[in-house]
Amino acid sequence: MILTPAQERFLTRQARGHLATVGSDGTPQVKPVGFTYRPELGAIDIAGFNMGQSAKYRNVRANPKVAFVVDEVTEPTMAGAHFLELRGVARTAVAAEDPSGHLAPEIIRIHIRRVVSFNVDPDGPDFEARDVEVDDGTSEVA
Amino acid sequence: MILTPAQERFLTRQARGHLATVGSDGTPQVKPVGFTYRPELGAIDIAGFNMGQSAKYRNVRANPKVAFVVDEVTEPTMAGAHFLELRGVARTAVAAEDPSGHLAPEIIRIHIRRVVSFNVDPDGPDFEARDVEVDDGTSEVA
Repeated sequence: MILTPAQERFLTRQARGHLATVGSDGTPQVKPVGFTYRPELGAIDIAGFNMGQSAKYRNVRANPKVAFVVDEVTEPTMAGAHFLELRGVARTAVAAEDPSGHLAPEIIRIHIRRVVSFNVDPDGPDFEARDVEVDDGTSEVA
Repeated sequence: MILTPAQERFLTRQARGHLATVGSDGTPQVKPVGFTYRPELGAIDIAGFNMGQSAKYRNVRANPKVAFVVDEVTEPTMAGAHFLELRGVARTAVAAEDPSGHLAPEIIRIHIRRVVSFNVDPDGPDFEARDVEVDDGTSEVA
């Protein structure tokens, strides 16, 4: 399980998130992005109007380490701040054509490696951070 | 001039932004944050509930390069996406006490070094990226 059901609900309720990438000189950049959660892949797909020419796309090709966050503020207190940050390894890919015709065919696909969650699961602890176990095909299922 | 009047208006209209920092191992992280623009310093101050113990604070002390973005979507098209990204050099500091008593005394102060702007200034070009000239005190005022 990569995300808990409460984390999945929180994630898919959000229209967009923010993606941080790091340039080849070590400088980070951060941009608002639309996204699609791909539970079957344990991944987040990020498309964009001009993705193939973007700095984030170039950054990911030079340095695959990225962080992506979705968040919501329901009241101006600590308890009213909610976020789900997914850190991982990003790859670039060319996706099937966008039916709306607005998005470039290139996408960034983030393979989730760490989940950091704050006030997302009403039945869980406020703060949770855990690494995602990656099944690389060499180990038995526990 | 670090920000144009239209960029200042856009920035100060937003309640929060997203800050990307990079850990000592090169892994980025990104979090929603409240902020205060300090035009007299050419800086953004970022406070938080638990700032002194946060990973972003630790990251900034190890690697001062950061990116901060505020953004808004007014319609689901390219023309309806607006953002102002400020990249810079961050320092940690201890600020005067928060009158509300909610925020930790530690802050992150971002000295703006590059401005990337998209659909922010109705009278300017859609996309603008420029470096900020830093007055390090060794040159005369032009």
